[in-house]
Amino acid sequence: MSRRRLLGTASAAGAAGLALGGAGGAWAHSAAQEEPPTALTTLGSTTVPFHGTHQAGILTPAQAHGHLLAFDLVPEAGRKQAAALLRRWSEAARRMMAGERPSAGERDTGIALDAGPSSLTVTFGFGRTFFTRTGLKDRLPAQLAPLPDFSADALDKKRSDGDLWVQIGSDDALVAFHALRALQREAAGTARVRWQMSGFNRSPGATDRPRTVRNLMGQVDGTNNPKPEDEDFAGKVFVPSSGEPSWMAGGSYVVQRRIRMLLDDWDKRSLDEQEKVIGRRKSDGAPLSGGHEHTEPDLEKRGTDGAPVIPGDAHIRVTAPETNGGAAMLRRPFSFHDGFRDDGAPDAGLLFLAWQADPLRGFVPVQRKLDRGDALSRFLRHEASGLFAVPGGPRKGEYVGQRLLEG
Amino acid sequence: MSRRRLLGTASAAGAAGLALGGAGGAWAHSAAQEEPPTALTTLGSTTVPFHGTHQAGILTPAQAHGHLLAFDLVPEAGRKQAAALLRRWSEAARRMMAGERPSAGERDTGIALDAGPSSLTVTFGFGRTFFTRTGLKDRLPAQLAPLPDFSADALDKKRSDGDLWVQIGSDDALVAFHALRALQREAAGTARVRWQMSGFNRSPGATDRPRTVRNLMGQVDGTNNPKPEDEDFAGKVFVPSSGEPSWMAGGSYVVQRRIRMLLDDWDKRSLDEQEKVIGRRKSDGAPLSGGHEHTEPDLEKRGTDGAPVIPGDAHIRVTAPETNGGAAMLRRPFSFHDGFRDDGAPDAGLLFLAWQADPLRGFVPVQRKLDRGDALSRFLRHEASGLFAVPGGPRKGEYVGQRLLEG
Ligand code: HEM
Ligand code: HEM
Repeated sequence: MSRRRLLGTASAAGAAGLALGGAGGAWAHSAAQEEPPTALTTLGSTTVPFHGTHQAGILTPAQAHGHLLAFDLVPEAGRKQAAALLRRWSEAARRMMAGERPSAGERDTGIALDAGPSSLTVTFGFGRTFFTRTGLKDRLPAQLAPLPDFSADALDKKRSDGDLWVQIGSDDALVAFHALRALQREAAGTARVRWQMSGFNRSPGATDRPRTVRNLMGQVDGTNNPKPEDEDFAGKVFVPSSGEPSWMAGGSYVVQRRIRMLLDDWDKRSLDEQEKVIGRRKSDGAPLSGGHEHTEPDLEKRGTDGAPVIPGDAHIRVTAPETNGGAAMLRRPFSFHDGFRDDGAPDAGLLFLAWQADPLRGFVPVQRKLDRGDALSRFLRHEASGLFAVPGGPRKGEYVGQRLLEG
Repeated sequence: MSRRRLLGTASAAGAAGLALGGAGGAWAHSAAQEEPPTALTTLGSTTVPFHGTHQAGILTPAQAHGHLLAFDLVPEAGRKQAAALLRRWSEAARRMMAGERPSAGERDTGIALDAGPSSLTVTFGFGRTFFTRTGLKDRLPAQLAPLPDFSADALDKKRSDGDLWVQIGSDDALVAFHALRALQREAAGTARVRWQMSGFNRSPGATDRPRTVRNLMGQVDGTNNPKPEDEDFAGKVFVPSSGEPSWMAGGSYVVQRRIRMLLDDWDKRSLDEQEKVIGRRKSDGAPLSGGHEHTEPDLEKRGTDGAPVIPGDAHIRVTAPETNGGAAMLRRPFSFHDGFRDDGAPDAGLLFLAWQADPLRGFVPVQRKLDRGDALSRFLRHEASGLFAVPGGPRKGEYVGQRLLEG
């Protein structure tokens, strides 16, 4: 595709403000953070703003590729080194997300050359251990209290927790890998990778279903997420500007779980059984009580046999805010597939990511209930876990976490 | 993106023959096999023909996602069961590649629902051991003689070789995973996954560079591949219609190598050093002797210091057909990244795939020379290897390998 054809596409789609620079230039077509990138805008040229009230990568439509990783500070590094690292990381993230090319003579792997940022986002968070390691224990948010043990957990400590958390998302796999290596280089001498996981979602343009995605069980996933247009959306997902601690204003708490799916078992079940496990139709995500994907499920409705059409242990009944004192979270997962296990089963499932203003009013009560056994849990294994404080988005000139580290 | 907008995009791009069916319908926009899919056609709706002289997935532009896997026949399975499996696999591949939806009541994971085939290709091959296991030893092609041992090899036998080889490519990760699971289901009782690897390339639309891709060393990769428009192209890559054995007419031999890159070492080298290792500029792939990406390298040219500007051990000098008695192959790789190793280094590199009419006039002589040490080899580790006979494409009504199994 020549540059001219690229411009042609974008203008045919009525996209405004596209400006493709040469070396050193920027891919400057900026899309609203909430709008899903589609084949109508050029996949490569879409940028997500680095600055804002919230960090990017929370409300951004889930990208086709994601890396999730945790770093631990090296023993010699303290608060000062951590602050310098966050400053370097923020500057690198800002530039890569804007599609700025490396300047002449700058060290760069070159992996992202030729490509636009492709909706690249980089999101930074702090784990509980970060606060002790940097002498900031007095600033540890109460919300970072360790998650309770769940009876069905089989957690690998080496792939759980960590001082610093990074989420990278992009619609291009090489752009995502370039960002991963660039951030790792900036960390050298200050922090080391503790664990790293990769995931994926549908490519923009592969489907005509924009907002919700499918997971590896074949289900439409994300339907009943809180929506930005809901009245109380911000209150569920983000720490308010008057919230505590004040450096978390505009921030959110993310729970990450590596949840392996027992796909060989799952795929043997009939469509009917599978749909009862969730409480929704597989084809289009409509609730079993009727309607289409976005029809409110009717949890009271009974079939001719007198039994509830959405069974008592159906996943959407057990997790619904109505049955959990209003507990809600924004789920923005990636699927993962790390080959096959020694037992011949696929090592695949969901990198579950739940965003909320307070885990005790989001993930924790709902997972407590799931842990007592919903129908879906029989097909799942929770293998790794993390909880991180993700501060608000940086203002111009600020770095992520500056209000914590210098406030 | 609504279905209407999807149609709008495709017609704006002048694509003909787009027909989006509902459940049971097909995504019928067919693109020529050699044309790279771009943002101009809709990523999801592009189909690659299953039938033809050659199997799909060889001349098809490399897709964003790939799975490579080998199956071994179970002890109870012989030629008859293998033939039945190839028939089932071919029918499944044909239907998925055409974008046909599963029919009502059909077992399907549902993972690809909503999505078009997104340039899905499935390619089947036979390993040396297949012929002994199925009593077809008299049909074993001479070209499947085991690859010689190379001194730098550190091969994992468990991730090498195998009776049957499958390559899956798609521009959508879920479509690719769906195909993987569908083929695995068809194999149940007849063959078991021996090894499986996943890889990636740039997403269509992420860049304005259509034909060549970048690898994880940041290099433009694929430049000097034989091109379909070259006079002797077919003779290098495919077995001629008069070739031996006759069931391989239109087929090709593929060498697969899992080549890990020592990226931490590599990324420490200066740009100048890196460019001398290959003999090409990193920014645009132009040879160090001057010009642009597709300028013929001048291996004789010397600098003011009298030294050749493309060094004696530069990768493109050591591998060039001119220095290897004309030995040539079509390289169509995927990059891979399987997290980090225990030593902290990324487990990443190239799933090298070389296609040729005869490995003894393609991969083998070139790798023999590389093995004596080109500049690039110092940054590489060959960790797994396979050689497979990939028969010609099926005619309508035929299954892949039918000429071998029933001929
Ligand atoms: C691999 C694991 C999981 C899978 C495959 C899965 C799948 C689904 C599906 C298909 C839906 C219905 C569509 C939707 O509204 O998104 C759903 C809803 C939901 N899930 Fe999960 N889920 C998983 C784990 C969890 C976990 C661990 C939690 C929280 C602890 C959770 C909380 C919810 C909530 C809150 C809803 C929305 C309920 C409603 O308001 O209707 N899920 N999930
Ligand atoms: C990870 C391993 C490898 C990397 C990163 C790599 C990279 C490259 C690059 C950047 C080029 C120049 C651009 C191009 O023409 O494609 C190239 C050319 C080439 N490579 Fe490799 N290569 C690798 C392994 C191999 C192996 C194992 C072979 C064969 C045994 C091979 C054979 C060739 C050939 C034949 C050319 C074209 C030479 C010419 O005609 O100019 N490469 N490779």
